Amino acid sequence: MSESDLPTPRLPNARDAVRALRPSQIREVANAGFGVENVLPFWFGESDRVTPEFIRTAASEALAQGATFYTHNLGIAPLREALAGYVTNLHGATSVDHIAVTSAGVNALMLAAQLVVGAGDRVVAVTPLWPNLVEIPKILGAHVETVALGYGAQGWTLDLERLLSALTPDTKLLMLNSPNNPTGWVMSAEQQRAVLEHCRRLGIWIVADEVYERLYYADDKARTAPSFLDLAGRDERVICVNSFSKAWLMTGWRLGWIVAPASLMDDLGKLVEYNTSCAPAFVQQAGIAAVQQGESFTRQLVADLKTSRDHLVRALSALPGVDVKAPPGSMYLFFSLPGAQQSLALCKALVREVGLGVAPGSAFGPEGEGFVRWCYACDTARLDAGVARLQTFLARHVAG
Amino acid sequence: MSESDLPTPRLPNARDAVRALRPSQIREVANAGFGVENVLPFWFGESDRVTPEFIRTAASEALAQGATFYTHNLGIAPLREALAGYVTNLHGATSVDHIAVTSAGVNALMLAAQLVVGAGDRVVAVTPLWPNLVEIPKILGAHVETVALGYGAQGWTLDLERLLSALTPDTKLLMLNSPNNPTGWVMSAEQQRAVLEHCRRLGIWIVADEVYERLYYADDKARTAPSFLDLAGRDERVICVNSFSKAWLMTGWRLGWIVAPASLMDDLGKLVEYNTSCAPAFVQQAGIAAVQQGESFTRQLVADLKTSRDHLVRALSALPGVDVKAPPGSMYLFFSLPGAQQSLALCKALVREVGLGVAPGSAFGPEGEGFVRWCYACDTARLDAGVARLQTFLARHVAG
Repeated sequence: MSESDLPTPRLPNARDAVRALRPSQIREVANAGFGVENVLPFWFGESDRVTPEFIRTAASEALAQGATFYTHNLGIAPLREALAGYVTNLHGATSVDHIAVTSAGVNALMLAAQLVVGAGDRVVAVTPLWPNLVEIPKILGAHVETVALGYGAQGWTLDLERLLSALTPDTKLLMLNSPNNPTGWVMSAEQQRAVLEHCRRLGIWIVADEVYERLYYADDKARTAPSFLDLAGRDERVICVNSFSKAWLMTGWRLGWIVAPASLMDDLGKLVEYNTSCAPAFVQQAGIAAVQQGESFTRQLVADLKTSRDHLVRALSALPGVDVKAPPGSMYLFFSLPGAQQSLALCKALVREVGLGVAPGSAFGPEGEGFVRWCYACDTARLDAGVARLQTFLARHVAG
Repeated sequence: MSESDLPTPRLPNARDAVRALRPSQIREVANAGFGVENVLPFWFGESDRVTPEFIRTAASEALAQGATFYTHNLGIAPLREALAGYVTNLHGATSVDHIAVTSAGVNALMLAAQLVVGAGDRVVAVTPLWPNLVEIPKILGAHVETVALGYGAQGWTLDLERLLSALTPDTKLLMLNSPNNPTGWVMSAEQQRAVLEHCRRLGIWIVADEVYERLYYADDKARTAPSFLDLAGRDERVICVNSFSKAWLMTGWRLGWIVAPASLMDDLGKLVEYNTSCAPAFVQQAGIAAVQQGESFTRQLVADLKTSRDHLVRALSALPGVDVKAPPGSMYLFFSLPGAQQSLALCKALVREVGLGVAPGSAFGPEGEGFVRWCYACDTARLDAGVARLQTFLARHVAG
């Protein structure tokens, strides 16, 4: 049989569950701005500042010293020890056998999901939410129910009873992200306690994405937002996910970690082997520098972010039709403005017409429609330039 | 309800499919050698040489220049372009819209599997095999049938008819690794053509793990082993997986790539987003240096590996009861010796008694029992030292 006799294949496609995953609406907006000069991008969840030099130097030194080999699946021992110390310091006694290093915070979420959910399992998530938490379980064949936060005079709030009633006995996993991307909502310790007790009773796993824990502004004395690690025993059905991206400005390094029951670690090690095998050796060395020498940097960063948040809230509040509140955590304002009922179209128009890059609320689920997300992790001059562009746009489009 | 009223939870466990995944027997052997001084490790699939300096320097320069931000899910454009050129050079015209950068070769395998298989799907793999290819589909709920290579006077060989008859119409995916880890077996172009035509007829996907393609010794004029990329159109149901680990000694960098139909790339980008989001920015910059400046390095590396392979084959052949053949590819000898019918126990004894670290054949599936794997990616003096230890062991245990 010659090749020309063979039937011409249709264009190959991914399986249906993958095709149904949400593409990034932020990317769609960024594409709409392709060719626009001088865009001011506030759409990604990333500071405009480079990683601190002492962390970059640590990686370069590790490279010079030849740290270019495979490492243990769960991470190099000194980094696991440094993280155990860091977590202990923030949230109480945590030994190294509860710590695993991962290839990014999102990789930690994927690994956590692989640990506990498979095809047909029921997962619950609180939304609006960074899409990754909702989409990851679907890759594994699970189905995801959402419980929406409410928006009102207090900003974004959780109806605890609604969440508890969604956590039915057949629920396998609750995925939570607090401080929250995109809303800045922070779950209170009281709410966490109620959820934890409910999940204990029903044997429901909790995956808590706490990558923004240090970006918390509601209590000047608190070094972190309330965490499930403050309440849960280390051997309960709670998997806490964290990342180096936010507290040490290491987005492009793809380094994260997991705090989980020691009884999971052998299986987690297998999953790391089959996903990425380990994080790069010299990246892990840089992680040690971040954890051990980065505390003063992180504290200054959080102070700077609070200044930026307050500055942006003030500036946006002065614009007509904008409803914005200062949220207690993360690095975003998630606010409403004229035209945001079609947030994707609005954001495309904003980038095309005035070169302002913000993320559409609908990127974070249907519950996010009516809002846009603005990442304020930059200096106030840059924020002012962005607000001026928004003002120009609104003056042009909103009847006075 | 106070916390003390709550039922004490059982120790939390991962789901059954994850608990059933094979743990690494190589790790088990390494653990058996814990505390043994001066172990000579040939058990991992890794050279004992550090990554070339020009590649490490490229990463350090990128760090100094501030390449610490997120990148495009599919990789930075210059790396994708460099890889498209590299693949074109080796295997014929390949445009950048067929290239995706991944966080390691194993991550590329996980992404490829996520693209095409879900719960209940039938996957076929040729064994003995690096366990990752067999275990990854199980994480996604697929079941994996294996077709064993045979071992005889010609070394490891494939019974093509057996493989074709295992590729039934209800098969979703064939996973192949050639040059093969652990056996060094290389699939011929004729076999690849027959498999490709069969899979075309039945609509079966092929994931070809070709990370050892440059480590090919059967034809001095050939720069790579036979590849599905030489035969298949770029828009067929063929996903080729590769890695920077072997050709440029970059195991600890976790950088790989995929060549796949352009029609898959949007969905692949989503999966990258939900797995690791991207490879580290400065690691990708180092990848450009490897691809663009590394050709003479790779050629010398392959020449050195061939010298090491031949040296080790000669030395092992001189030992009593050892049956070893020089395989055409990869960087392993997979050979039989007295006691290898219980290869795990043998390898533990080897490391404990004489400090020789080799991998048990059973680590690569039941078809591997009776053999051990020796990675020869080091200089001949080191190989000689290992062989001397094996000789001591055999003299002690095998009746003369």
